[in-house]
This record gives sequence, C-alpha cells and structure tokens, in this order.
Amino acid sequence: MRKYILLFLVLSFAGKTLFAQSDEVQIRSFYNSALNSRVAYNNLEYLCKNTAGRISGTPEAAAAVEFTYQVMLGMDLDKVWKQGCMVKRWVRGEKEESRIVSEIFGTEDIPVTALGLSSGTGPAGLSASVIEVHDFTELKKLGDQLAGKIVFFNRPMDQNLINTFPAYGGAVKQRTQGPALAARYGAVGCVIRSLSSELDDYPHTGVTTYADDVAKIPAVAISTNGAELLSQWLKDDPDLHFFYRTTCHTLPDVPSFNVIGEIKGTEFPNEIITIGAHLDAWETGEGAHDDGGGCMQAIEVLRLFKEQGIRPRHTIRAVMFMDEEMAQRGGKAYAREAKEKKEVHIAAMESDRGVMTPRYVTIGSDKLRYEKAMAWQKYFEPYGLRIVKGGGGSDIGPLKADNPNIVWLGMTPDVQRYFRFHHSPFDTFEQVDRREMQMGSATMASLIYLFDKYGL
Amino acid sequence: MRKYILLFLVLSFAGKTLFAQSDEVQIRSFYNSALNSRVAYNNLEYLCKNTAGRISGTPEAAAAVEFTYQVMLGMDLDKVWKQGCMVKRWVRGEKEESRIVSEIFGTEDIPVTALGLSSGTGPAGLSASVIEVHDFTELKKLGDQLAGKIVFFNRPMDQNLINTFPAYGGAVKQRTQGPALAARYGAVGCVIRSLSSELDDYPHTGVTTYADDVAKIPAVAISTNGAELLSQWLKDDPDLHFFYRTTCHTLPDVPSFNVIGEIKGTEFPNEIITIGAHLDAWETGEGAHDDGGGCMQAIEVLRLFKEQGIRPRHTIRAVMFMDEEMAQRGGKAYAREAKEKKEVHIAAMESDRGVMTPRYVTIGSDKLRYEKAMAWQKYFEPYGLRIVKGGGGSDIGPLKADNPNIVWLGMTPDVQRYFRFHHSPFDTFEQVDRREMQMGSATMASLIYLFDKYGL
Repeated sequence: MRKYILLFLVLSFAGKTLFAQSDEVQIRSFYNSALNSRVAYNNLEYLCKNTAGRISGTPEAAAAVEFTYQVMLGMDLDKVWKQGCMVKRWVRGEKEESRIVSEIFGTEDIPVTALGLSSGTGPAGLSASVIEVHDFTELKKLGDQLAGKIVFFNRPMDQNLINTFPAYGGAVKQRTQGPALAARYGAVGCVIRSLSSELDDYPHTGVTTYADDVAKIPAVAISTNGAELLSQWLKDDPDLHFFYRTTCHTLPDVPSFNVIGEIKGTEFPNEIITIGAHLDAWETGEGAHDDGGGCMQAIEVLRLFKEQGIRPRHTIRAVMFMDEEMAQRGGKAYAREAKEKKEVHIAAMESDRGVMTPRYVTIGSDKLRYEKAMAWQKYFEPYGLRIVKGGGGSDIGPLKADNPNIVWLGMTPDVQRYFRFHHSPFDTFEQVDRREMQMGSATMASLIYLFDKYGL
Repeated sequence: MRKYILLFLVLSFAGKTLFAQSDEVQIRSFYNSALNSRVAYNNLEYLCKNTAGRISGTPEAAAAVEFTYQVMLGMDLDKVWKQGCMVKRWVRGEKEESRIVSEIFGTEDIPVTALGLSSGTGPAGLSASVIEVHDFTELKKLGDQLAGKIVFFNRPMDQNLINTFPAYGGAVKQRTQGPALAARYGAVGCVIRSLSSELDDYPHTGVTTYADDVAKIPAVAISTNGAELLSQWLKDDPDLHFFYRTTCHTLPDVPSFNVIGEIKGTEFPNEIITIGAHLDAWETGEGAHDDGGGCMQAIEVLRLFKEQGIRPRHTIRAVMFMDEEMAQRGGKAYAREAKEKKEVHIAAMESDRGVMTPRYVTIGSDKLRYEKAMAWQKYFEPYGLRIVKGGGGSDIGPLKADNPNIVWLGMTPDVQRYFRFHHSPFDTFEQVDRREMQMGSATMASLIYLFDKYGL
C-alpha cells in the first residue's frame, strides 16, 4: 500500500528535478504515515490513563519512565537507556479546600490547588483577611499594610494577545514570584488567580519559587470564576476572610530518570540531534497536552524514521525529560552528562506547547542559517506551515552553554485553546485530537529529516 | 478602557499613512472586542443546552428560532424578522438499536443512528445477511447478488488528505446516494460506516436521498469502531446477520422560519451583504460546531459593528437559515424572496465548517476582484490568516442564480478535528473554545468591514 502511494506521488511530481522530488515525496510520506497511524495516540492514552499523577519523584513518574522505556525498547532502535538524575519530591497531601467567609455574603467554597513546591497551611488551615493586587508595583506600594494578610494576585491573562503564550508570560510572575514577594512584606498567605484564558471552575497549578531569606508562606491558585467572585465580594466586604487548607510539603530529593532512545548516525554518529519533551506532569490532570503528547511526538519521529527506512547521517535521540515542571533537573542532567562525555550537539527540538495543529516551523539560529532554512519553506506549504524564527525550551536550553552553535528546531501549534488545559484537571487525553497531534509529529520528522540531510 | 487601547494603537502605528492606520486600528479593535467578550459564547451555551434537537420542524427548532429572534431584538438593530418557509419534518422515533449476530463470534451491539429522511425498519426491525462494499463501482459489479441483502458501505475518510473536507467529500456519497443505489439492486437495507476521521463509538448521522422509482430501504450509520468489527467478522463469517431497528418516518412539511437581523446601509441601503449560518442541527448532538457556533458568529458580527459604532455603507444581514441539514429550504426561501423583492445581493458569507481557529480568509469572485482583495492580506497577517480563493455554501448558494456577480466572502477554520464532532453526539458546547470561535467572529467582521468600505 505504501509503495503504491509512493509510486503515485512520484508520478504526480514528474517534471520537477529528481532531487526535489525525493524530498517532497519523503515528507509527504511522513505525513501519510503519521496521519494513518494510531500508535502514538494509543500510547498517549495509556500514558494518560495509567500514569496520571506523574509529577517527579512519584510512583506514577516511575511508571511513566518504565512505560516509555519499554515502548522504545520495542522499536528496534540502536540504543535505549535511562539517564539518572536527582529530582524534586513534592507531595500534595490531602485534597485542598478553600472558601470565602463573608459576614455580608455568606460562605462559598472555591476550587483550589496548591502551587507546586509550596509549603502547606498545616492541618488547621489558614484564615486571614485579603488584599487584592494585580502586579508587583501595586504590591510594593502597599508594603507593610500586607502584614498578617493573604495577598490575592488577580491579574488575568491578556485576552487581546493573539498568541496566548505571551499572555501567559505576562501573568505568570504572580505565580512564580508572587508568594515570595508577598512574604517579604509580612503576608501570611498568597492566593493567585489561575492562569487560564477562560472563566471556569478549574484551578490551574504550577510551580512557585521561594526566597531563602523570607518565610515560605503557603500559596495556592483558585479558579478564575472563584477569583472573580472573591474580587467582587471584596469590593463590598473588604473585611471578609479567606480560608484555605493545604497539607503539601517537600521531601528530600529522590533519584529518577530521563528516558532516551537513539538512532545512530551513519556519517556523523558523534553529532547529536535531540528531540525532547517532558515526561513529568502535574498530578491534577493527566498531562495529555502538557506534555504527554509531546513525548509521544518525540518517540513518533523515531518510529517514522524507522518505518520509512531512513538511516540518518547524524545521531537522533528522543529524550523524555524528567522534572520539567519543578526544577528542570532532567534537562540539566542531560546537558551535564553531554558536557562530561564531550558530546557534540548540533540541534535540539522541544515539543512542549500542547499538541494542537502545528502552525509554524521555527528555527533558532544566526541570520545566515535562518535564511538557509527559509529554502525549506516550500516543503511545508502543503501542510499549512510557515517557517519563522523561534525555538529553544526549558529542557533543551541547558545544552546551549556548551554548544553555542546549536540550532533550535521547533514547531509552534495553534495555541488559542491551550490555556484552558494547561496545568489543570481538564488536561486529559480526551482533549487531544489524533490528527492534530500527528500533524505535529510529521512536521517534526520532516524538519529533522531536512536538517539531518542538508544541515544549516 | 477601549479608548485607551485605541490611543495606544494609534501611537504604535505612527509613521504609516492615516488611512491605513485607521483600518488597522479598526480591525485590531474587532479582535480585541471579540476576544474579550463572552456574549456570543454564552448565547451558544444557551442554544446548545436549551434547544438541542433542533432539526427542522421540531419544537426545539421553534425554540431556537425564538431565542435567536429575541437575541437580535435586544441588539438595537434596524430590523429583525422571521422569514417563513415550509420545511422537512422527519421524526427519528424510538432510540435505534443494531447488532451483529454471528454463529461463530456471537452477538454484539453496535452504536447506530438512522440517516436523516430515511424510512424505518418498523417495530420488528430488519435482519439480513450483509455484503460489504467500498464504492459504487463495486456495488454495481455485484448487481443482483445484492437482492435481499443489507449493503454495508465501509469506505473510510482518506486520512492522507490534509484538508478533511475533501476527505469527507470523497466518502459522503455512500451516505447521500448509497441507500437509493443499493435499493435499485434489490437490497433490503443499507448500513454505512460513519463519516468520522477517527475510530470511535459515536455514530454520525446525516441526510440520505431516495430515488422516486425504487424502494425506500431503511438506512443507518454505525460507529467507525462498529464498522471495523463488522468488516472483521464478515471476513470469517460471511453468513452473519445484521439486525437493526428504526422507527423513523417523514411527516408532511411544516412551516418554520429563517431569522434575520439587519443593519441598514447608509449609502446603499438596497445593496445587501448576507452573513449566514444554519439554525437547525441534528438531534443526536447539540449542534455546537454544526452550526450553532456559526449562527453566533454571524450575530456577533452585527454586535461588533454596533459596539464599535460603525454605520455600514451597505445593508448587512445576519441570517439564521432553517433546514440546511435536510432540504435547504431556508436558503431556497431566502433566495426566492430576494428575487421577488428584486433585492440586490452584492456579497454573502457562510460559517458552516465548525468554529475552530480561522486559518484562511476566502474570496470567491472573478480574477480581477480576487486580486484586488489580495491587497487586504496585510490586515489579516497579524492574526495568522492568509487570503485564498474559495467560498459559497449550501444556504447562500441559491442567491447566485439571480445575483451572478455576488462575491463569496468567507473564512476557513482549522478542520483537523472537525469530523470527530460532525453530526455526532460529540458535537457539544464543551467542544467549542471561546477564543477559537471569537477569532472567527472578528475575522468575519473584519472582512465584511473591508468589503463594505472598499468593495471589490
């Protein structure tokens, strides 16, 4: 059947040069294979339904390591291994609760989630009056008035931005740095509005970072609907109290693994192209878009190369990084070992923006190499893709230090709906569409194929 | 707040010509307003949750007429009215059932739905042996061997096609024409594989068309998983029987309505731009993507014009067409009345491809006008959109006969996942993303704005 399709395509492209033909046909073949295959999608279903809760250091994370290890062992790759690293071990504890207690309006339970690496309130919970702020300038202006209070960061994502990632970027500091800053002014707790593009009832978690020289106050995110309600009630009842109870806590670091599969390069086995995604995921959902789907895409690239009988010139690795969500220990360990072994990393790609339909192919390099890559534009046009500048990522970023000429290869999906799922209980397998995800897998394989063949 | 944004944008664009500035700013303002608004999305939720089942002629369709009529009455439009038309009245009857009965493999229930306008099996159901075919050539070759059998059309959608609409188009004939053709060779029933891009357990309905000179045999669609199973079992047990029971039937036509809202043109009130979508929807789901979302986008264009204080030069109408799914009676009635009243229709747009992120702006016109439209490309680039040829639709199509120079304005969304929902129980409000839908609304408003201002 595949032979038949190839024959058809070769005939269709008759008239163009043989060389161009062959690349166009190869890329078409990646897309055909990806769109007809259910392997990656079925594996994603397994990962979501059987290893949900796989934040680093958990038994679920260990199960995800073992599953992806076994999947890659079954693919006839040249090498599959686990790369050890010490990771954060944070435990959510009992199910969180939170409520607004107002003498005027009454009491209302609010959907809540502890922030990753946050300390807990302890079994008794925490109750205090609330001061609402929207940014750090406002916070600093209030200064000592925050002592003994719960600081409520209520900055929404900017809906005007067409790309939702900068909208997230513009609001995420309240989660990552807000609690530490509030503590500096004597606040006893910190509640943030979930980083969601919608008004709904899902709390969205994510990591927060404490400072060493101030109190580690308990920090939580509440749903956007909850944040709207709290803000509304505060207007008429500034004396209301917010209560929340979290028993989360951090344990000593534990050993875990990155999982790596490799196809050895025929010409340049010591020059490495890394395709990364992260295996850990917040335990409030299934980590389907973030980032189980990305993991399955990375593995799918290897499957596509094997299935199409392509022997790459350079060594190609799919790396399932551990602990992206809390301390990026997997990414750092991968870069550290690369340095120790004097590995040469020529390119790296990361899929960690959800597995919706790909819109852009991204190249992160100097101007000359970027312009060279633009010659590949024609290969991606049939798939609705444009080449733009961009790339990098939190797991592959550490490679840059010792490989300053590394090229970031990448792909940007359509992200309009991504922040409905992101870090929330809504990030489930059911929210992933197989064709959208596989359009991404084929795009990644095509870009890696071109880079491996022609370089930049 | 809006003033502030406008000021900011005016300053940002300083240096360009005043004229171009103003269009860019206006279009930016459409997107900002649409992305910050929940009006259309909340109305879609109401439509989905309170008028589900609104296939033409039903009380639910009447409720949808009344709801959209009231919504538009509340918008301070120049005119809102209901346009009468007689529509098909087909009743599904009792919940359908179907099963495979094999002496080798046993009995297995299969998810099933009657095709629209199909006759029923009657209360006793129908049981017969099955012949599987994949296209009409195969069917015709079998000829009289089909007598007394159930014909099983099992042609899947072609996964290789990047645009899923041609994939649907390549397979849909088995549903629309298959039963009538099978009957011509003496078949007693017809089962089709659901037109879904995935393997799942949802049956997807849709209309079928009988011929007047052959028996109207009962026709159903089974889920794609069911079709796979039936095909597999048939290989080893060609004598198995398929049983199904449907009590659907067609009643005489009943009166219904298109619902129309209008903003009168200031310069050319007699020249009309129509923005259409269809209000009826299959009763197996909520008709969220098909086409409640399209209806809400059409109304949203009028809301955006009103909110932004734009008085169009030409008359702009949002039309909720009735009975698109079965006989397009609403579209035909609209064109008929336009002819009777000697209305001049200069452009028409239809949103009926789901309300996912828009990818392309489409123009359907002669070459000269298309080339003129390409000058608008720059306005759509910040929103990731390209102008391509295309347009038309089943509801606005009938306008063409009496308005040969009509321009089709349109928008094509990202359709990778559309055929998971299409005509199935999965087409629910929850599958619609507000930002994706509103990106479409703003795109439609922007294109209408440019056409109204500059013409083509």
